Amino acid sequence: MLQPNLQYWFEFGGTYSYLSVFRIEQVAADAGINVEWKPFLLGPLIKEFGWDDSPFNIYPVKGRYMWRDLERLCQQYGLPFQKPEEFPKNGLYAAPIATIAAVEGWCPAFTKAVFRANFSEDHDISAPEVLTGILESIGQNVPSVFERAQTQENKDCLRQQTEKTPSIRIFSAPSFIANGELFWAMIGWSKQSSG
Amino acid sequence: MLQPNLQYWFEFGGTYSYLSVFRIEQVAADAGINVEWKPFLLGPLIKEFGWDDSPFNIYPVKGRYMWRDLERLCQQYGLPFQKPEEFPKNGLYAAPIATIAAVEGWCPAFTKAVFRANFSEDHDISAPEVLTGILESIGQNVPSVFERAQTQENKDCLRQQTEKTPSIRIFSAPSFIANGELFWAMIGWSKQSSG
Repeated sequence: MLQPNLQYWFEFGGTYSYLSVFRIEQVAADAGINVEWKPFLLGPLIKEFGWDDSPFNIYPVKGRYMWRDLERLCQQYGLPFQKPEEFPKNGLYAAPIATIAAVEGWCPAFTKAVFRANFSEDHDISAPEVLTGILESIGQNVPSVFERAQTQENKDCLRQQTEKTPSIRIFSAPSFIANGELFWAMIGWSKQSSG
Repeated sequence: MLQPNLQYWFEFGGTYSYLSVFRIEQVAADAGINVEWKPFLLGPLIKEFGWDDSPFNIYPVKGRYMWRDLERLCQQYGLPFQKPEEFPKNGLYAAPIATIAAVEGWCPAFTKAVFRANFSEDHDISAPEVLTGILESIGQNVPSVFERAQTQENKDCLRQQTEKTPSIRIFSAPSFIANGELFWAMIGWSKQSSG
């Protein structure tokens, strides 16, 4: 029998993605579920709502709540947390690298290192030297990765991922797809754990 | 020792409030927590976001997801569900009644009956005959309740509730306040149950 499959859609700038990136492998392994890592860019998908920034910036009341909630949840899950000076950070360079990494099998290691840089070290995750350091730390050939990440083919691949299934419209991060159904982040976790 | 207290803020038109109304008493009792029922009107609080309707109507992609999610969660929790023809229903008459009920101790019975009428029977919860039927079914003196609900004093009491604590800004329903901290609906459930 095939192992059940879960698509895990995450956004490098996303605060709630940070909460799941370090937990999903264990949760999925415990449940006997295979995780397919799906990096994506949320920005283009929320443009249709008229949003050209994170809704947490557009609606400060929600933003204030989110930062406190994130702090509480990081504490609960034992995740180090330092509020980034800039939010959301630019994932335009990390996401195409993760797209390659997902094909080649090193997406979890790369992704976790980028999220650590963003939310616990407050580094600029769009800076070449930060990405270089991360790629070196996980044993990747940096020039080769940079070159392949920036090909039009790879960038199209990243963009087209979210356009493939018009019936499943992702509108937030992280999002989960299982059995052809979308589960949005926080509700998804709730469903899973409250039984 | 005083029993820990949880304020439970719900909105009569709210779909995610429906999911918690029938479950909160048991969950709280199991945890030894006292529930303070806090009916409120979400509409005026989201006006500052530029929203004059439910965000589930303003952003149909979110709305479509919400209805499917609600259906799944109702099934999971064994709650009957019939998608209301009109959404959100008008809680302008039920909320002032619930404000009185909260003081007099019959808020849970009234609130559950109104949510059942809205989300499992698709009745108009702003219709006097629907509210009359509900009040009679729980043994209330209908003319007296109607009269007291519509006094300016009671309506002010309902409105002022959400203006009392400027540091705690409610922006969605249901919301929970414990130890002076706000927990938003879905995240709140998740935190509670995922340990």
